[in-house]
Amino acid sequence: MSLLIRGGEIITADSRFIGDLLCEGETISHIGEHLTPPNEQTTVIDARGKYVFPGFVDPHVHAYLPFCGTQTKDTYTTASRAALLGGTTCFIDFISPERYGNLDEALKRWHEKSRGQSACDYAFHMTVTHFDEAIEKQLRRIVREEGITSFKVYLAYKGSNGIEDADLFQTLRLARELNVLVTAHCENETLVDQLQKQLLAQGKTGPEWHYHSRPPCVEADGVHHLMTFAELTGAHVYVVHTTCAEALHELTAARERGVHAWGETCPQYLLLDQTYAERPHFEGAKYVLSPPLRAKHNQEILWRALSQGELHTVATDHAPTDFATQKAMGRNDFTRITNGVPGIQDRINLLYTYGVERGLLDLHRLVELAATQPARLFGLYPAKGTIQVGSDADLVVYDPNYPSVISAKTHAMNVDYNAYEGMPLKGRADTVTVRGKVVVQAGCFVGDFTHGHYLARQNTQIEIPR
Amino acid sequence: MSLLIRGGEIITADSRFIGDLLCEGETISHIGEHLTPPNEQTTVIDARGKYVFPGFVDPHVHAYLPFCGTQTKDTYTTASRAALLGGTTCFIDFISPERYGNLDEALKRWHEKSRGQSACDYAFHMTVTHFDEAIEKQLRRIVREEGITSFKVYLAYKGSNGIEDADLFQTLRLARELNVLVTAHCENETLVDQLQKQLLAQGKTGPEWHYHSRPPCVEADGVHHLMTFAELTGAHVYVVHTTCAEALHELTAARERGVHAWGETCPQYLLLDQTYAERPHFEGAKYVLSPPLRAKHNQEILWRALSQGELHTVATDHAPTDFATQKAMGRNDFTRITNGVPGIQDRINLLYTYGVERGLLDLHRLVELAATQPARLFGLYPAKGTIQVGSDADLVVYDPNYPSVISAKTHAMNVDYNAYEGMPLKGRADTVTVRGKVVVQAGCFVGDFTHGHYLARQNTQIEIPR
Amino acid sequence: MSLLIRGGEIITADSRFIGDLLCEGETISHIGEHLTPPNEQTTVIDARGKYVFPGFVDPHVHAYLPFCGTQTKDTYTTASRAALLGGTTCFIDFISPERYGNLDEALKRWHEKSRGQSACDYAFHMTVTHFDEAIEKQLRRIVREEGITSFKVYLAYKGSNGIEDADLFQTLRLARELNVLVTAHCENETLVDQLQKQLLAQGKTGPEWHYHSRPPCVEADGVHHLMTFAELTGAHVYVVHTTCAEALHELTAARERGVHAWGETCPQYLLLDQTYAERPHFEGAKYVLSPPLRAKHNQEILWRALSQGELHTVATDHAPTDFATQKAMGRNDFTRITNGVPGIQDRINLLYTYGVERGLLDLHRLVELAATQPARLFGLYPAKGTIQVGSDADLVVYDPNYPSVISAKTHAMNVDYNAYEGMPLKGRADTVTVRGKVVVQAGCFVGDFTHGHYLARQNTQIEIPR
Amino acid sequence: MSLLIRGGEIITADSRFIGDLLCEGETISHIGEHLTPPNEQTTVIDARGKYVFPGFVDPHVHAYLPFCGTQTKDTYTTASRAALLGGTTCFIDFISPERYGNLDEALKRWHEKSRGQSACDYAFHMTVTHFDEAIEKQLRRIVREEGITSFKVYLAYKGSNGIEDADLFQTLRLARELNVLVTAHCENETLVDQLQKQLLAQGKTGPEWHYHSRPPCVEADGVHHLMTFAELTGAHVYVVHTTCAEALHELTAARERGVHAWGETCPQYLLLDQTYAERPHFEGAKYVLSPPLRAKHNQEILWRALSQGELHTVATDHAPTDFATQKAMGRNDFTRITNGVPGIQDRINLLYTYGVERGLLDLHRLVELAATQPARLFGLYPAKGTIQVGSDADLVVYDPNYPSVISAKTHAMNVDYNAYEGMPLKGRADTVTVRGKVVVQAGCFVGDFTHGHYLARQNTQIEIPR
Repeated sequence: MSLLIRGGEIITADSRFIGDLLCEGETISHIGEHLTPPNEQTTVIDARGKYVFPGFVDPHVHAYLPFCGTQTKDTYTTASRAALLGGTTCFIDFISPERYGNLDEALKRWHEKSRGQSACDYAFHMTVTHFDEAIEKQLRRIVREEGITSFKVYLAYKGSNGIEDADLFQTLRLARELNVLVTAHCENETLVDQLQKQLLAQGKTGPEWHYHSRPPCVEADGVHHLMTFAELTGAHVYVVHTTCAEALHELTAARERGVHAWGETCPQYLLLDQTYAERPHFEGAKYVLSPPLRAKHNQEILWRALSQGELHTVATDHAPTDFATQKAMGRNDFTRITNGVPGIQDRINLLYTYGVERGLLDLHRLVELAATQPARLFGLYPAKGTIQVGSDADLVVYDPNYPSVISAKTHAMNVDYNAYEGMPLKGRADTVTVRGKVVVQAGCFVGDFTHGHYLARQNTQIEIPR
Repeated sequence: MSLLIRGGEIITADSRFIGDLLCEGETISHIGEHLTPPNEQTTVIDARGKYVFPGFVDPHVHAYLPFCGTQTKDTYTTASRAALLGGTTCFIDFISPERYGNLDEALKRWHEKSRGQSACDYAFHMTVTHFDEAIEKQLRRIVREEGITSFKVYLAYKGSNGIEDADLFQTLRLARELNVLVTAHCENETLVDQLQKQLLAQGKTGPEWHYHSRPPCVEADGVHHLMTFAELTGAHVYVVHTTCAEALHELTAARERGVHAWGETCPQYLLLDQTYAERPHFEGAKYVLSPPLRAKHNQEILWRALSQGELHTVATDHAPTDFATQKAMGRNDFTRITNGVPGIQDRINLLYTYGVERGLLDLHRLVELAATQPARLFGLYPAKGTIQVGSDADLVVYDPNYPSVISAKTHAMNVDYNAYEGMPLKGRADTVTVRGKVVVQAGCFVGDFTHGHYLARQNTQIEIPR
Repeated sequence: MSLLIRGGEIITADSRFIGDLLCEGETISHIGEHLTPPNEQTTVIDARGKYVFPGFVDPHVHAYLPFCGTQTKDTYTTASRAALLGGTTCFIDFISPERYGNLDEALKRWHEKSRGQSACDYAFHMTVTHFDEAIEKQLRRIVREEGITSFKVYLAYKGSNGIEDADLFQTLRLARELNVLVTAHCENETLVDQLQKQLLAQGKTGPEWHYHSRPPCVEADGVHHLMTFAELTGAHVYVVHTTCAEALHELTAARERGVHAWGETCPQYLLLDQTYAERPHFEGAKYVLSPPLRAKHNQEILWRALSQGELHTVATDHAPTDFATQKAMGRNDFTRITNGVPGIQDRINLLYTYGVERGLLDLHRLVELAATQPARLFGLYPAKGTIQVGSDADLVVYDPNYPSVISAKTHAMNVDYNAYEGMPLKGRADTVTVRGKVVVQAGCFVGDFTHGHYLARQNTQIEIPR
Repeated sequence: MSLLIRGGEIITADSRFIGDLLCEGETISHIGEHLTPPNEQTTVIDARGKYVFPGFVDPHVHAYLPFCGTQTKDTYTTASRAALLGGTTCFIDFISPERYGNLDEALKRWHEKSRGQSACDYAFHMTVTHFDEAIEKQLRRIVREEGITSFKVYLAYKGSNGIEDADLFQTLRLARELNVLVTAHCENETLVDQLQKQLLAQGKTGPEWHYHSRPPCVEADGVHHLMTFAELTGAHVYVVHTTCAEALHELTAARERGVHAWGETCPQYLLLDQTYAERPHFEGAKYVLSPPLRAKHNQEILWRALSQGELHTVATDHAPTDFATQKAMGRNDFTRITNGVPGIQDRINLLYTYGVERGLLDLHRLVELAATQPARLFGLYPAKGTIQVGSDADLVVYDPNYPSVISAKTHAMNVDYNAYEGMPLKGRADTVTVRGKVVVQAGCFVGDFTHGHYLARQNTQIEIPR
């Protein structure tokens, strides 16, 4: 099986040229000018006038997430299809064991939910909710044998999947020893809990109050807290979904004093704002996620942080729950609204249209934030995340001039609304390949759900100053 | 003419793989596995066990610099040979017209000094020392017709090549209009002048007092000043030879408030310190340069700034003057010691040995700082600065395990001392090519001095958020 | 002559109690409970229900200021009367010699304009516009023999009263030696000049463009520049009329690194904003002053800086010119609008009504900012600035419940408009004394213009960490 | 009973003059020149050549403190005598109820330990270790009826007197409602606990390891955490014993964003450093306190913060335990060394000798930091904390030229060592009065232990911007 992509403008974090790519088997074998198909079976794709990007990597996805007796709406089937249609060829899901639950069993469950059901490649982070000798043993094995080289901790949600401080310290200590990156949801849980109670006691039950239960300083406090723990353990940490100037400041200040830390943000924080959650008739519930959408002035700050290198990745935190049935559980109590927005399909198109086209990011930085850096941080590079000889032939032929409009009516995600409903887009992934196989053609899904592989990962591949 | 480099580990800012590079004519035509030589005349280089880097770009070099009745010691011949032996395949020199002098004539003089005398490619920045209608007209032409797309201003040295504030404003205004990057030497000249007089009046005449005439706040004040002017004109600026925390802070703070600014540092500030200039018996004069070498704790701060993206390039500010005859002019008056250190040959080896090998930079970041970013900022990319199909075949096959020791006795620069004398190195540029021609072989210069081209440049190619 | 003020609530920076004050001759002799008049000639003032403040000190006043062929409208007679009606019993004017002029002669002129013509006490700062041996000699004598213990420099207005950098350095060096405080107007003159030209060239001639010729970064750059010079000379400096977050930040940062610096702001920056200068029909010209009125959000920042001790005094920069005849000179060119607003009469009432009554300052801090700190910084303490035994009997019996409205129709300043026109006030100086003599009674002026003394001053009396 | 203090130089935060003070009954009735004794029974004190300060207030004292089966060595008798000999006429102790204990009973116990046993006046803070409805009720009553207008919380020591986050939130909420100041020991307890375990497991058991179990970032994290809780509840907080740049930075940054926060430091952090705890033969145990003594460079930072107003009080955290018997319990385990140093007698002498005499503080600031601000913050002003008519006649006649040397052999504190052993002093409290009664004469204690009163306090009297 071979594939020749001809005449596109090939874009990586540091390259930009018009040329041809030849893929043989699952990997890229030649990059050059005027390549010729090695045989008659070679699929030839005309990419003239289009960009050729490396397949994008989404490091923060909930493809399967049970919680509170329900679960997010997508399956690996629907999520992987939506990902591919949006140019994302690989994502990392979060194994979420029950509190005090066995990690191996949780891993087994996630394999059951995904194996043979994904059209794109995927990997797992392991969530750590408490720490003891048994957990340590399981974590050591999982890192060593299963290629799960990143943990997830929640500073929020104590009592459910949140982690106590002593266990956080031990988790970071172990992560340092194993050279494993710890991703963290940073909000102080006690403050959230107390503020929620205050608000509900005052009769403030609508989705517009969600923000007020998690103001910026709650997030900043979480980041500051994590940074101190990282400083003392030497662990490497990654702040998921950074939303505001206050949290960003704590991250940046920590990096300046030598803490090994990276930061992620998501399209919803770059493009939507607090007023969305204030929409009447419970419409605001569509925009309830944690941390919440912020005041609009933060958007410029986040874009600049992406451009200048203070933030390192853009992920989605894709977490789809239906408005009509799931979000609705919180109609009389915003704390019961299912958190999260869908987004796996829209990330790249949004970044292209509202970042690149508005001049806030250049094409190189788009690739770096959404493909190369996620791959390097999470040990998928160089198989994933860039275009080079020997890397997986995960490629996106992107038409920068294909107009469309986002809508739940047409999107491929299995959820009844879209947070970006009605927003016009300028570009589209025309052709997408996963390990040499064309899975999207002319913007339509043509893949199959047995093609996606589980990826055992290496350690973080950004070599960090010692 | 074709060239095949086989089996090396190819390193760019975002790629790392073992593969082959085929160069046809002057450019790279194919990147792949198991490439075959297209014909019998193909030169084949075995790069197994070695790195293949893009040719490094030094954006801050004085190959020819007349001053105070003397001039720097190198010629284009000696400087270009030394550059190539150190892995640098392209540098940018500074045209330094006399105060009130005609820019076109100065350009002509620099062409005369370089044309047909360089083994590597080169380009020019244009120094602006004053501004009036005639100068504006000359600058417009030079940018448009000569491909000189960057200016240089000195906030220090007022009266000689320093620029007055009003002229600085006009220069930046014009630069903004022409989309030209303005590089700046940032030290407040009045403070230097006053402090020099104070010190000399106190009988403090030795090289160790040079530092005290230009303390960190003098540099920081210069940076702050430039940043304000950049903020108000919208010009894009580039701070050369950043040396200390105080100056770095002003740069970083300005970037945070949206000023379009970049920063450079040099190996001397990363590896040497203030105590060198305090060496007895006038030995310290070897280490007199401006801004001066700083207190040692700044080194860690600069390395971290390089690693985290707060500084963007490493250049040399190569400025060789002989210790015995030129530096000696200041034996009784440190203000008359010729400023500067040589370094064009040592930059990459020092960064590799003391940066990469000590874990302070990774290989990708080495390439980014010393090749890709200089090329993109100064409009040489993608011909220079990276390895991609179509780019110039400027390549460095680098042996990471070749031990040597720096010494003036063996270096190729035409100057009688080396600031890094006695420092051990771990790696060496084995083979170097310029536009497909091998100019260094087994670490020996085999080039010729008619091969180097003057490069007309494009505008800055880092797309900046508007 | 003796004076007994009974039953008032006596307020100083650190005292607050109900008691009696006995003044004998020109000073306070007893503070106690139930004091009895020493003789029948004792004037007894009933202060029950009122505050008794020390006479307020305004360290930044232009009572006489010739410029551009005209002069500010007040005389010492009218200015001193207005000051006293507003509770200010002492002010410091600025001697403004002509460029290159003799300082002794300028001093003589200021004495002529004030001697025997002021109802309140006063002192002088000496403006330094250039520096040479003759000036140094004059300054040394003036400090030593005339009790002028502070200098003024303008970083703006280069060419008229602005100072060149080299002269600034020498002035600060001398000030350090003589232990004299240097007050400074901090705006970069070149930027102002260039921006003015740009705006006028674009046909932007109205008063609303004044702001755009002096944006916040122009002021911040001035402050940063002064701080560097102060750091290197060791001089003690005082930033007049701080207006915005950007300038304040530079002041605060410098203090953190050990620069000896203080900051002043003025009521106009606390209460008015940029939109005033945008009022139609040239009305905006009334609000043209330098630095200009800023965006409203700065007000909160300045109030907080006063409350927390980042700013140290509130002065007026009283500079009255008539709207109809003087400001009107700039009708077609905002750069020709006479700069400044009147305010000597309104400072305390505004601070009380809009600071104390709104809870932004407490009474102690009011006294500290407008009396004690100015007196201590400028060597008038303890004769002026507080209430203690032996200090001058300069006292203000203040009725905190006397409603009025500011208006040019009723104000005592000799100028045809009031920048605070129509603003309601809550309090009034009922009785004011200067050295034991009642000069304001029931809110009416009853003083005489021979009573005011010129005050030879000591050095700064805030003992500064060495 | 009347008392006349003649001819001293009277110093308050904003006054300085030579004069007389007449005290009648317990308060100051007249301040003046040449006062005459009202009757023959008047005690007359000649203060010529000496300073007269207000009695100093120590807001952080453990006069009685049971813990871990032992208790601090002083009693109210010995502590009050030592306080007075050192010029402190009033202190505030901490009621420390047992975990889950009844606050009223604890209060009763503290009254039993102090009533009729103190030579100086005193007050109580109430420690809150957990929060529930019963505690809330007790706190409301204690604030309202007992004049205990400040709480104490420990972010360290969770499990013993530390407070959980949810209880901290509720305590601050209540404090805000009652307008009560919350003092806080800020160190993250989990980090301390984990680091202690790590160190002990590594066999690091000596007193020199105490520091490493509580590095600066542990304290800074505590301050940051408190600041976030204060920001969200609107409570006013007071950080006790600030020791280092990192913690100070968090305090200052919070104040800049509008958090109502004050900071205290102690002489031990201004004058001793980390190396003291490294003294051999377990001598280091004398210097084990929490937070620990820091690296020496912090001293300059703390002094500057005091001088510039970023820190607001100097207290002692007096906590005397015998070296021979109590500190010795931790001979094999630093975590069991009794924490704290004695200091109530030495604070003013140390601040005078090492602050004022070295030019780091002026006399006004000494009074402000050690008398006026503690009194105003903790509701003792104006009875305590300054010299004004009507305030308590708590006075210190201070001889600035009385040389002595600190030694446990001669000190009055009931503890077998002195942390400042051997340090020379320059000044001494010659005469001290408490409410008009002379209790120290010629440097000797002449008071009696029934004279001291318990002081019911008002709310904080620094009027805070709303």
